Amino acid sequence: MAVAELSPATSFTSSQSSYVAPSARLSYHRRLSFQHVPRTVSTGIRCSVTSDKIQAPGVINDGKTKQDCYGVFCLTYDLKAEEKTKSWKKMINVAVSGAAGMISNHLLFKLASGEVFGPDQPIALKLLGSERSFGALEGVAMELEDSLFPLLREVSIGIDPYEVFENAEWALLIGAKPRGPGMERAALLDINGQIFVEQGKALNAVASRNVKVMVVGNPCNTNALICMKNAPNIPAKNFHALTRLDENRAKCQLALKAGVFYDKVSNVTIWGNHSTTQVPDFLNAKIHGIPVPEVIRDRKWLEEEFTQVVQTRGGALIKKWGRSSAASTAVSIVDAIRSLVTPTPEGDWFSSGVYTTGNPYGIAEDIVFSMPCRSNGDGDYELVKDVIFDDYLRSKIKKSEDELLAEKKCVAHLTGEGIAVCDLPEDTMLPGEV
Amino acid sequence: MAVAELSPATSFTSSQSSYVAPSARLSYHRRLSFQHVPRTVSTGIRCSVTSDKIQAPGVINDGKTKQDCYGVFCLTYDLKAEEKTKSWKKMINVAVSGAAGMISNHLLFKLASGEVFGPDQPIALKLLGSERSFGALEGVAMELEDSLFPLLREVSIGIDPYEVFENAEWALLIGAKPRGPGMERAALLDINGQIFVEQGKALNAVASRNVKVMVVGNPCNTNALICMKNAPNIPAKNFHALTRLDENRAKCQLALKAGVFYDKVSNVTIWGNHSTTQVPDFLNAKIHGIPVPEVIRDRKWLEEEFTQVVQTRGGALIKKWGRSSAASTAVSIVDAIRSLVTPTPEGDWFSSGVYTTGNPYGIAEDIVFSMPCRSNGDGDYELVKDVIFDDYLRSKIKKSEDELLAEKKCVAHLTGEGIAVCDLPEDTMLPGEV
Repeated sequence: MAVAELSPATSFTSSQSSYVAPSARLSYHRRLSFQHVPRTVSTGIRCSVTSDKIQAPGVINDGKTKQDCYGVFCLTYDLKAEEKTKSWKKMINVAVSGAAGMISNHLLFKLASGEVFGPDQPIALKLLGSERSFGALEGVAMELEDSLFPLLREVSIGIDPYEVFENAEWALLIGAKPRGPGMERAALLDINGQIFVEQGKALNAVASRNVKVMVVGNPCNTNALICMKNAPNIPAKNFHALTRLDENRAKCQLALKAGVFYDKVSNVTIWGNHSTTQVPDFLNAKIHGIPVPEVIRDRKWLEEEFTQVVQTRGGALIKKWGRSSAASTAVSIVDAIRSLVTPTPEGDWFSSGVYTTGNPYGIAEDIVFSMPCRSNGDGDYELVKDVIFDDYLRSKIKKSEDELLAEKKCVAHLTGEGIAVCDLPEDTMLPGEV
Repeated sequence: MAVAELSPATSFTSSQSSYVAPSARLSYHRRLSFQHVPRTVSTGIRCSVTSDKIQAPGVINDGKTKQDCYGVFCLTYDLKAEEKTKSWKKMINVAVSGAAGMISNHLLFKLASGEVFGPDQPIALKLLGSERSFGALEGVAMELEDSLFPLLREVSIGIDPYEVFENAEWALLIGAKPRGPGMERAALLDINGQIFVEQGKALNAVASRNVKVMVVGNPCNTNALICMKNAPNIPAKNFHALTRLDENRAKCQLALKAGVFYDKVSNVTIWGNHSTTQVPDFLNAKIHGIPVPEVIRDRKWLEEEFTQVVQTRGGALIKKWGRSSAASTAVSIVDAIRSLVTPTPEGDWFSSGVYTTGNPYGIAEDIVFSMPCRSNGDGDYELVKDVIFDDYLRSKIKKSEDELLAEKKCVAHLTGEGIAVCDLPEDTMLPGEV
């Protein structure tokens, strides 16, 4: 294979100092290509190549190159050396599991484009897949290359969370096994729980000590609890279960009913479990700053239709669409992250499934429950205190709480709390959202 | 069905003036729901509903409501009446064909988010699908609702281009039939050509007189030519065939070879047809402002490997990924539109498949050929004059030109130029990109 050379006649000025030494620069061309490594042997992350034409197989470990990189992202860029990028923030590491799936296929391009973390935040994407999906992971990395995103400076792919999560500052845990035909919910809790035991342990071992973890893979509340319990060295407050899509759907339905654009709807809380027991809270929600029950004077609609439409929207969509709502889920993940890295607008809040211990609402401690949060934009949040309850809301919240306490008992063997006892009275998984 | 009421006690101030009259506001709730209309009868656009619980079927045409809207997007918003939106531009109508497909599934959310036309450009999306894909179209519209994009103010869906293209200022023509097993290229040209005859006629009849048309559905150059020929009242200069993904891929491969980040690569032209005869031009391309042949001193690699990798990247990706490159295609459509609505950076250019008549390169007239363009950001472009040619580049361009002239003869019956004579010597369709 021919090797590129820089023209000796070319004198690079300081603006070209992002060039790296040729030895480091080109070493990825000579890395082992996949046909030479039985894929089933190693579970580590390996550098891939972008064409099948590599003729000089062999691993070069010169100590300067990255172990876990992809194509053009194997280079090291000195952002401080360039006028255009020297004011940029320090690069952040964002790990994404289920990276070969459809939600990630939307999300990764949003993360890379800068719309999540801003136009001055360079990003390293660390993609976790499975052995089965490894080819697709490479395909995603190739498409990310071809998209020429200025902020995307590293992409690595792998199937071992202990490698992929290294120094991760965000871990977006999207991957989970879908429920197979005839699978009991208890079995689903167990099979996915195992994944989150391993990922929690891996985060605990190798991630940034302040990593923010967002669990999307369902059942996401209990998966987040399992993950958290297996990562005792990471603050419990850093774990989130995604209920933002439910919040967005609730806002849209309230807007539709009231005949207003959805940006007029605020203060919508999703309480509880991301399941059909979830509680879209119309009591505290506002339209044009006015409490929803004063704008939509149809309590029956609010208690019955509204709640049901929000809870079953995912299933309705699958019926129309033939597949689950990957694009809007990805949008809601973006919204959820943005809500943590930008200050919450005055008087408003957002929903997230977070750890209940210390909550001011009287909800059972030690579960992950969706509640209203505010952030000052530092990645952290606090629970909102000025919410009101009525008997209806209390009873609905209680039902979701009971469900999560039952789920917790089902996974006691995964959280280190003894023997699992699984007694789930109803099957409340969101249709199509397993 | 219960009807929402605004509290009579609620006194709205001017900031709430975007409320529309209750009669208009709620009428979409009473529209005909789909189970009452045999879907095969009408080919028009109809307003859909977001739940199956509509109990008052019947079409209300009060003259104030939209005929072709979706859910929350059926309302009319007075953007000038609100502080937040009163400085926004006038809404633009963007029509997208193949709207239920995977490329659109990425693209629509980018259009709606504001990343294409900017944060002060409200947008109406007009989605064209087929009868078969109508449920999926509704699903896409539901997901767009659930995404709460502030700039997205209208979504309409339909299967008749004469309705969907009405007043369209951009038409992004993504839909095309994929080549079936054993289908000859001539047959593919014909079957897709028919689609673009109809869409060209529809654009000619109902679109904005200055609509910009971007053809993505393959074979995109010849489809664009057919579309253009059937829309004589729209300037020929307004038709584009997408070759931006090829340009992006070429930039990435040059960066990879030179060991630089892709933002150092500029002035890359894709010449010709979006097929395997396409010509990624390394002669005029630059890295750090230096001609590529002076940076990558490996002519054999440039002429053979580079060219081939760019031409076959789509196929390589399908092998890895199991499906074609929807996400990066959507990114490249965004890039292509942005290149027309923002001024081209000083000294650089971009590639687009445009009408050759009057070109300064000696390329045959009256075909759609990818060439280097610059724009001052008004949606229009001019061809770049200061490019150089050598024998290699000339001969490659000639080959692609010959192919497009042969394709043109194949579709003479569709462009109004007589009887088709189809003699395509080679099958040069891009693998996986039909």
